[in-house]
Amino acid sequence: MDQRIGKQTVKFENPVSILETASIGGKKEGEGPLKAYFDQVLKDDYWGEDSWEKAEIKLQREVANMALAKAKLTAQDISYVFAGDLMNQCVSSHYAMRELGIPFFGLYGACSTMVESMTLGAMLIGGGFSEKSMCLTSSHFCSAEKQFRFPLEYGGQRTPSAQWTVTGAGCAILTGDGSGPFITHATTGKIVDMGISDLNNMGGAMAPAAVDTLTAHFEDTGFSPSDYDLILTGDLGVIGSDILTDLMNQKGYNIYPNHNDCGKMIFDIKEQDVHAGGSGCGCCGSVFCGNIYKELKKGTYKRILVMATGALMNTITIQQGESIPAIAHALAITTEL
Amino acid sequence: MDQRIGKQTVKFENPVSILETASIGGKKEGEGPLKAYFDQVLKDDYWGEDSWEKAEIKLQREVANMALAKAKLTAQDISYVFAGDLMNQCVSSHYAMRELGIPFFGLYGACSTMVESMTLGAMLIGGGFSEKSMCLTSSHFCSAEKQFRFPLEYGGQRTPSAQWTVTGAGCAILTGDGSGPFITHATTGKIVDMGISDLNNMGGAMAPAAVDTLTAHFEDTGFSPSDYDLILTGDLGVIGSDILTDLMNQKGYNIYPNHNDCGKMIFDIKEQDVHAGGSGCGCCGSVFCGNIYKELKKGTYKRILVMATGALMNTITIQQGESIPAIAHALAITTEL
Repeated sequence: MDQRIGKQTVKFENPVSILETASIGGKKEGEGPLKAYFDQVLKDDYWGEDSWEKAEIKLQREVANMALAKAKLTAQDISYVFAGDLMNQCVSSHYAMRELGIPFFGLYGACSTMVESMTLGAMLIGGGFSEKSMCLTSSHFCSAEKQFRFPLEYGGQRTPSAQWTVTGAGCAILTGDGSGPFITHATTGKIVDMGISDLNNMGGAMAPAAVDTLTAHFEDTGFSPSDYDLILTGDLGVIGSDILTDLMNQKGYNIYPNHNDCGKMIFDIKEQDVHAGGSGCGCCGSVFCGNIYKELKKGTYKRILVMATGALMNTITIQQGESIPAIAHALAITTEL
Repeated sequence: MDQRIGKQTVKFENPVSILETASIGGKKEGEGPLKAYFDQVLKDDYWGEDSWEKAEIKLQREVANMALAKAKLTAQDISYVFAGDLMNQCVSSHYAMRELGIPFFGLYGACSTMVESMTLGAMLIGGGFSEKSMCLTSSHFCSAEKQFRFPLEYGGQRTPSAQWTVTGAGCAILTGDGSGPFITHATTGKIVDMGISDLNNMGGAMAPAAVDTLTAHFEDTGFSPSDYDLILTGDLGVIGSDILTDLMNQKGYNIYPNHNDCGKMIFDIKEQDVHAGGSGCGCCGSVFCGNIYKELKKGTYKRILVMATGALMNTITIQQGESIPAIAHALAITTEL
């Protein structure tokens, strides 16, 4: 049973349902426009732990437990976990998941991880290898700044194009026998590198990958932008979103009316001093599993495309003069088949 | 079509073939017992690049090109790439794969990556989502030492239980319509952490995960150790292998006669001063895609289990007093159905 259509897209013969989600936001995220959608908002960056890294581990552990509880399931009901994060060697996922005892696939897709995990989770269900898949990711502003940029105590200035790593986590449980929202198509991205090497302009570095995957999605499926109520990107932020919508327009796809970006939605860009908007695996993770999933269930959206983007460098490659490779993965989700 | 048997294992209704492999070894690996099996052996650690990191990127790029050439395929023939490595944010895979333009799934499984990638690559074929999957990984002694331990120039002493990160890479191309060797079963591991926190005893930290997955494999399938000509672990080394075989014996599974370990095979343990043996993603990668695949094709082995193990910490978690979570993934491979 060949489920492929076109070069990069699969159409699920038996669409996979998103059974339940859970979403946690940090303190700052809980002061933003989406505060009502998080299942829990943290009071501080430590959450009772003695390091930011341990707080991020707790984010993934708790968001997983919360999703299980909301779905009235236990870890034993899950066939596979798909998880990853920004920390070196993806330790937030590994330490969080060691307590659940579920067969585990570790992923690294940077900020594309939420959609990468749901793509593989859905494919394993669609192929008869998994009954229920758990897909999750996280990021933490403090652990990310410490690892990728400067010590927080240094109080470094940020450029206007810089994005603010979201403290948050999202978890989705997928099943083959649910009643929707349904994952109907997955378009998996190629690595695209247009030569941008400015770590403070990640949106700009990731936008060409988003253009590449979105174009492939329309070509493979024959869909047009107006087939979607919402075309949601992960964390291109203000600058990357403008590049995406303009480049898509040049290619003949008008996504201005129905495009939005998790990095623009999660913060009040002007009031919360986050420069070009939110970023991090937890940005798409917490926004999709919070705001978007709940609005899908309410009927606000009937048919959406969610496309998470990731910047795939590390600090060493940039110091050695390399540019930033990026990727974008997309999933079409509908509430009615 | 439910392809699951037991809690952690799938049995492929249509076994997936390993169409072709390629393997590259570093200079030291090319002086070891398996030197004749590498498709290429490096003359030095830089391979014409100006950093070890760039040399590792070249390892993955070239091993992929080599596998394509041996299989008489181009990148366009591959549906998906599954790749990962030990570098922070898995940059060896990302920078290598940006030139191929193939839909990409980034993985992090530490030294279990070769089997994690082949597991997902095979499942996507078995589910009708992929026609051909490319699965690859790498490691580099110098880039790994620099990142995880000490500057090489420091010349630090090593403990006898320490393992030597392999400089090497392996790539396997899987297909749904080949003539074998066939991947028939996949047992996917859970994260196991028995409290070992000594970074210089990775074999000891990983052995309990290997015991867990191997036991699950036998329980799920009903197979016994004697059903396999070879039970091959990824890189438990001398110490971890002894722990695995002893613990399995305590559980009633005698794998002494047919167990071997890539980390023990790739070096002459006594002569090459590698302490407890080889490790790194490239250990299982280059040994499986070199020695093992070629001996399967020759008929030396008819039925093997390959189980790669990974240690899932990073330097920060260990500095913060955490222990080492580990994982092991296993694939059953046969030359005749």
